[in-house]
Order: sequence, then C-alpha cells, then structure tokens
Amino acid sequence: MNTVVKSPTKTVLIGPDQPFVIIGERINPTGRKKLEAEMLAGDFSRVLRDAQAQIAAGAHILDVNAGVTSVNPQETEPAIMVQCVELVQSVTDVPLCIDSSVVPALIAGLKAAKGRPIVNSVTGEEERLEAILPVVAEYNVPVIGICNDESGISYDPKVRLAVAKKIVVRAESYGIKREDLLLDPLAMPVGAVNTAGIDLFTIVRMIREELGCNTVCGASNISFGLPNRHLIDSVFIPMAIAAGMTCAITNPLEKSIRHAIYAADVLMGHDESCQRYLTAMREAQASERAGNGATLASADRRAARDARRAARSARQAEG
Amino acid sequence: MNTVVKSPTKTVLIGPDQPFVIIGERINPTGRKKLEAEMLAGDFSRVLRDAQAQIAAGAHILDVNAGVTSVNPQETEPAIMVQCVELVQSVTDVPLCIDSSVVPALIAGLKAAKGRPIVNSVTGEEERLEAILPVVAEYNVPVIGICNDESGISYDPKVRLAVAKKIVVRAESYGIKREDLLLDPLAMPVGAVNTAGIDLFTIVRMIREELGCNTVCGASNISFGLPNRHLIDSVFIPMAIAAGMTCAITNPLEKSIRHAIYAADVLMGHDESCQRYLTAMREAQASERAGNGATLASADRRAARDARRAARSARQAEG
Repeated sequence: MNTVVKSPTKTVLIGPDQPFVIIGERINPTGRKKLEAEMLAGDFSRVLRDAQAQIAAGAHILDVNAGVTSVNPQETEPAIMVQCVELVQSVTDVPLCIDSSVVPALIAGLKAAKGRPIVNSVTGEEERLEAILPVVAEYNVPVIGICNDESGISYDPKVRLAVAKKIVVRAESYGIKREDLLLDPLAMPVGAVNTAGIDLFTIVRMIREELGCNTVCGASNISFGLPNRHLIDSVFIPMAIAAGMTCAITNPLEKSIRHAIYAADVLMGHDESCQRYLTAMREAQASERAGNGATLASADRRAARDARRAARSARQAEG
Repeated sequence: MNTVVKSPTKTVLIGPDQPFVIIGERINPTGRKKLEAEMLAGDFSRVLRDAQAQIAAGAHILDVNAGVTSVNPQETEPAIMVQCVELVQSVTDVPLCIDSSVVPALIAGLKAAKGRPIVNSVTGEEERLEAILPVVAEYNVPVIGICNDESGISYDPKVRLAVAKKIVVRAESYGIKREDLLLDPLAMPVGAVNTAGIDLFTIVRMIREELGCNTVCGASNISFGLPNRHLIDSVFIPMAIAAGMTCAITNPLEKSIRHAIYAADVLMGHDESCQRYLTAMREAQASERAGNGATLASADRRAARDARRAARSARQAEG
C-alpha cells in the first residue's frame, strides 16, 4: 500500500516495499528565533537555503512549517505559509508537506502548493478531525494522523493504537483512503520516558499489521535532552524502519542520519545491488578526500548564493 | 527466558529484557595469517592483547577460536585451543565462547574453560548434532545452533526456521533446555544476497515468537564485500535488536558499533535512566578532548604492555 505524494514534476511513493522517504525538517521556525524574526520581516533567504541544502543532501519531500508563535499565528501564519510555499516551489521540484497547527494556514498552504502535498497534520481530537478531514478530502491529498487526542499522549501503546484506529475510521467516513493516511505513533523523548523507543516500534508494527497504513514520525523528538542526539536519531530511525516505519521527518543535513538511512535501505532489501549506498559512499569518500567536508561546505555556499539570487528575483517579480 | 553464561567471577544474562550482549570476535585466526602463524609458533601475545582490548571496549563475553586451517586442525587445534583458553582466563574474568568446527577442539576447550562457557557451535547437520549435543548436555552449557543443515544455507527464511526447530527438538531430546539454546539465523553478505538483512530480521522474530529462544549472529558477515563495513554493521545490529536479537559476535573495538549498541539499548528501554549511554558518551568526549582518540591509543598500548607481561609470566610459570 503506497502513499503517493507529488510535485508538478516528481512523484514520491511511501510504502513498505519502497526505499525509506526522508521528509526534511529544517523549514520550521520552532526553536529558531532568528528564522521566525526573518519570516515575520519577509526575509525568506534562509528558508530557500534550507530547502536547497536539504534537497542536495537527499531529502525526498520538504516539510514547510511557518509557525510564528510570537505573534497571533491565526492571523499572521497563513500569509507567511503561502510565501514560504511559493518561494520554495520557485527554486525546488520536490513535493511538500504543509505543516501547521493553524487550520487557515494549512488551507492557505494547500491552495498554494502544486502537485499532491501531504497535510501535516490531524490528531484524534474531535475538533481537529472535523476541521481538517473535510479539507483533506476536498483536496484529495495524504494526511499525517498523530496518535493523540483530547486526553493528551498516552504512555500505553494500546491507547495510542486506539487513537490511530479512530483516525482511520473517521477518515474513511470522509472517503479518505487508507493509503492516504500516514499515521504518526509519536516519538517521545527517551531520556524522559524510558520506553519511548520500544513503544514506538511496537505501535508501528501494530499499525502495519492491524491497519495496513504507512507510518511516519518526527524522529528527532526521541533524542531530546540527551547528549550526542544525532547518534540516538541515527540508530532510532533504522530500528523504526526494521519495525516497519516508512518515512520520517528528520534532518538530512546530518551525515550520520543520512548514511544510517542508506544502510537501512540496503538491509531492508530496498536498494537493488546496493547502488544508492555505493554511490553515497563514493561521494562521501570524494568529499572527504577534498578535505574535511570542504565539498559539502562549498555546496552549502553555492546553495546560499542561489537562494539569495532566487529571493532577489522573486522580490523583483513581486515589485 | 535468559541464557546464563558464567566465568568463575562474572555472570552474563542473555535475554529479551536484558541489555544487548557483545561477544568479542577478535580472537580468531580466520583471515588473520599473522595470528595463525603466531598461534602455531606458540606466541599468544596478540591473543592476550585482543582479549584485554575487547574487554576494555565493553565486550561481555569473548569468543575464542583457534581455527588453524593451514595445518591439520583435527590434530593441532585442540592443544592450541587449550592454550588460548588458559591464557585468556589468566588475564581476564569474562565468560568465554568456545568456538570451533573441530569437535575434539570444542571438547578440549570446554574442559579448559572455567565457569559456564558457550559452545560455538552446532548446526542442523545430523553428524554435528549427534557429535556435539551429548557433549553440551554432559557439560550443561549453552550452545549456539546455526540454522543450516546438510543441504547448506537456504535462501528461504522458512527453511532456516525449520532447521532451528530441528535443533531445538533434538537438543531437548538430550535434556538441553530452550534457554540454553542460542539460535543463529545466519547473516549472509547483503552485498551478494539482496534480502540478507530483512530475512535475518524475519527469522529472528519468528524464532522469538514460535520457539521462545534467544538469538545470536556473527554480525560482520552481513557487510562482507561492501565499502564502509562498520557503517553497515552498526546499522544492522540495532535493526536486528529491534527484531528481537539478544546478542552478537562482533567487534567492540569499533566505536561506531559499540556506540550503536549503547544507543539501541536506550531505545529498547534496557538502559535505565540512560546511565550507561551517558557514561559512554562522557568517556568518548573526554577521550576526544584528550586529542583525537589518544586515550584509546594509549589504552591499547597499555593493554599490549599488560599482555606482553602476562605472556611472559605465563611462559615463566610453564618453564
């Protein structure tokens, strides 16, 4: 069962027999005060830079979140979301994941997005189900369903599975098919909740076996508060893949995470003749030979320069 | 269901609710011509060095293999195995895994080993079952059962599971309990067999669910022939852990593998309050601060010096 996500030129399949799909997490002002201030001031150069660097690093889909929480997001966020989506689409060709807790921003982002983006997200909360599922059905797009409801996030995997079932049933009542549901079992910080990892693996497997749906998660939550977070993330994602997880919102700019995903694809039998792995290792070796990540740094500089140019020409087109 | 392994002073539990157990693979002349020549010449300094370095790096059990294949191993190997076991035991206190395809060497090693070592290994081949299981029963020790038989290694996970079942039934007919069986589903090179990883995860899960036994594998086989082998190994082991694997014969001297196992234990909920992970990260950081692995290098030099001393005093004791 594949979830089909599209830009005008690219189709990405998310499914148990597909290579793992990386949804780039970087376009998100949460915890990035500078980015939020820039977004509010209409400066999207960093957004474009993040977009291009993530694609260069192998992101298949880009999450776009314009959550400006220091102002009234209900009023401010929709316009910023539209600007983000349009600018990102002007310089990239991968599908998008429209990410907001503000329903008008989700709708505005969906209208601006070309192709078949993902809606991120609905939960099991009545109010959100009733506000978001009709929109998802109308635009005929996939949606991420997060396994919490009015009572919060349960520590009991069975309760979270019950929320997943509720989302599936309600979505189907709106004519949304199971292949268009990406269920998120919720990665909690394992430094605070000792069973956060194993619980997630359990729920992923139960969702696959009992509901047949694809799964996703915001992977970096798992390592919150621990030292060497990238190590935890780069071990967590392959373990979740072994349990059946099909995609994650994560940071492809981190080499250890990216390489772990390539190795996991090899080990799942999703990289025929190990071609992608071999290519990635050759590139990494070449980049190391060029001197301690110099190639990546120069790629980053190039992306930044292109982003500045794109932002400039976008401003000129507007003016 | 825990498998209990012992030295005179240390007990190691292998089980689904225990931290993952690392069986150090280094004491093995296979593919190490220099080590084989030294063993044949009665020089065990490298064996002692490998023993101490692996324990310093966190090995819980040491595999001892004296497979000198360039001579007639049936005649030569038993005596070398005994020397290896005695010398390793003279300088370390972890349990051992007596590893040989030569039955007299297994028996000689078992006689020399103190505590409750693992026998590595029996297969599903009639001849080996009938030669080794009575010995295992007599010494009341755990045994690794490898899932191949006279017909070789099947590509079909169900066939390998059937061999696992055959080993369990036969072992039980000798009074060997299920908790004393460590079943090895066989890691094949994923560069040659595209489904080697996913097949192993599948068999591990089936063995856990259908037979209740603990599982083990020689982990580094999986990456044979691929570049950046440690990356594949360090992703493979956590994925196998997520599928239920309880221990592996691997190389703890490789930091990426060791750290991946610590992270995997955190994610399985087997490292309460992340204490071991936090300690390992602090130590790694301190060692990096001391200048690019200088601490590890000096630990290695220290281990080498200790090993030379131990070998010297062992020789003196013999003379």
